[in-house]
Amino acid sequence: MATISVVGAGLMGTALTFPAADNGHDIHLIGTHLDTAIIEELKAGRAHPRLRRTVLPHVTPHFHIEIPALVPGADLVVIGVNSRGVRWASGAVGPHLQPGQRVLMVTKGLENTGDGSLQLLPDLFRAGLPDAIRDSVRIAAIGGPSIAGELAARRHTGVVFTSRHGEILPELRRTFATSYYHVWTSTDMPGVEVCVALKNIYTLAVGLAAGMVEAETPPDPAGAQMYNTAAALFAQGLAETAYLVQHMGGGLETVFSLPGAGDLYVTAQGGRNTRLARLLGKGMPFSSAIEEMPGETIEGVDALLSVAPAVERAVEMGKLDGDAMPLLRKLYRIMTRHEPIAFEWDSFFGKLPFGK
Amino acid sequence: MATISVVGAGLMGTALTFPAADNGHDIHLIGTHLDTAIIEELKAGRAHPRLRRTVLPHVTPHFHIEIPALVPGADLVVIGVNSRGVRWASGAVGPHLQPGQRVLMVTKGLENTGDGSLQLLPDLFRAGLPDAIRDSVRIAAIGGPSIAGELAARRHTGVVFTSRHGEILPELRRTFATSYYHVWTSTDMPGVEVCVALKNIYTLAVGLAAGMVEAETPPDPAGAQMYNTAAALFAQGLAETAYLVQHMGGGLETVFSLPGAGDLYVTAQGGRNTRLARLLGKGMPFSSAIEEMPGETIEGVDALLSVAPAVERAVEMGKLDGDAMPLLRKLYRIMTRHEPIAFEWDSFFGKLPFGK
Repeated sequence: MATISVVGAGLMGTALTFPAADNGHDIHLIGTHLDTAIIEELKAGRAHPRLRRTVLPHVTPHFHIEIPALVPGADLVVIGVNSRGVRWASGAVGPHLQPGQRVLMVTKGLENTGDGSLQLLPDLFRAGLPDAIRDSVRIAAIGGPSIAGELAARRHTGVVFTSRHGEILPELRRTFATSYYHVWTSTDMPGVEVCVALKNIYTLAVGLAAGMVEAETPPDPAGAQMYNTAAALFAQGLAETAYLVQHMGGGLETVFSLPGAGDLYVTAQGGRNTRLARLLGKGMPFSSAIEEMPGETIEGVDALLSVAPAVERAVEMGKLDGDAMPLLRKLYRIMTRHEPIAFEWDSFFGKLPFGK
Repeated sequence: MATISVVGAGLMGTALTFPAADNGHDIHLIGTHLDTAIIEELKAGRAHPRLRRTVLPHVTPHFHIEIPALVPGADLVVIGVNSRGVRWASGAVGPHLQPGQRVLMVTKGLENTGDGSLQLLPDLFRAGLPDAIRDSVRIAAIGGPSIAGELAARRHTGVVFTSRHGEILPELRRTFATSYYHVWTSTDMPGVEVCVALKNIYTLAVGLAAGMVEAETPPDPAGAQMYNTAAALFAQGLAETAYLVQHMGGGLETVFSLPGAGDLYVTAQGGRNTRLARLLGKGMPFSSAIEEMPGETIEGVDALLSVAPAVERAVEMGKLDGDAMPLLRKLYRIMTRHEPIAFEWDSFFGKLPFGK
């Protein structure tokens, strides 16, 4: 059995300990400096405050000061921080990683490099590692529809583990796969990371429709919802995802399966992105809507504020087609320039062989 | 302005009169022999009983006996019957069609030919036409996420008009496109028809998850739903759709945009397919669940009972890969052989470059 050190005791880092512990591995769940209250609860044998479950017997909680002691000897290090914590994780964990050590990242997405390019977060993590091990550490990441609370409840969950080091994937899969955690493997890391980042953004679009219905006065007499509108935005989101995936060298099969369509579907079922979008759909300006959700990380907003300026820069530089991602660009203007929620429908699906 | 004869006064046939009437066309809405009660209401100026709206001023309701009078002179004939009515429509409307006349079909999907092939419903309609006009009538069909009640409420709705006669598409688009009805055109008729037929089937899979949660005793203490499971089934459904679309000569862009992902998303938001699936998910046998919904056409069941035997036959004949559509085949066994709802997860995504 393996020894696994999970750094980050948020929802997903903690949820991943369930399949790993069910497989009999020994797990150190190490909170970050932001997770102190969580670790105190777990050390006292009480439930994780956000996951609302106690961890399994094979899982030992630790404060972040134990990172130097628990990372070097681990068979696998799981980075369980969110996208805002990648640089911190690189700096805090990196000096203790060993040559060739395996890292599995829950953190996924894209970062604006400032020069019209987007960097995959696993590559950003790698860039912050010490010279001595930077090239030899083998990094994998997880994509696909996985709500942490459902994984911890042992609901059937299907995900894709991806890595540029394809040789580590079968063993990683065996470490985590259970009767309820279904793991496929893919070497299409650009495809998976683009899908993961963009699904948070396009969930904001899908979620607008619910707010728009609520805001109507008087309500439609026959009770018509706006699922057609939500579905068209869902489809345009996937089409833009397909464009960027291909631009970054990924494959379409990643778009129409778990990482793309599956994850966009699950993300649009609820959560913070959807709540914010509903407020915007009701006509609230972004600056006010964000104040209604104090202290919450809204991944779609983080992703949009990172990706959209990079897309604009890439368009200016001629690296991306300006007509390829009109929905993403419009969402950015809704957020940052208070543009009204009125889509330029004729601009949609412009990169597909569809007439208009 | 054009004169349009719509045959079939069900939900979608009637809903389509809204954008057409908004564009100023003259519309004859002709009920089938099953729509007599609807036409009586409309003739009396009352609301459509199912759509819960009166029709617009440019729309004149007629009983089906007027088909011979109103079809030949129409600039466009819309076939608004459901998949069970295609043969009837071919026989009832066909003798009155003129050489080269244009037909737009709301009816979409696939029919089992019995020899291991699937026929597109527009082709089935054409096959039933009189010899004199069979080859010259120009048929188009509609795909994409479009709930009739929302279209009639003038919600933003995005669809794809498809035809093998690409030359008729721009004019058809102009006839119907409005500020809320967004029409793209595509000559990928096989892709659109496969997507339309299969979305009803895979909605049955997605909907099972909600019933499975409800059936749990005791309920999960942290309130975990099964969106992960639903999303994985959504993704597998799209992956199987992609396989069959490609098998039938269609394009992947049809799968990851409006006809595939968009329509599966909207169909999974509710409706009869979802209600039946919830009952099955709760553990009710198909034979009992179907009795709970008397007199209702459940499109996913019709599609499954037509498509699945054709797929089995095609697999026997070596025309289709037996490993390519495990979810569809399992759904068929759940319905017809009372197999338990336990998916062979390892069989999923077998046609993608994913390891397992």
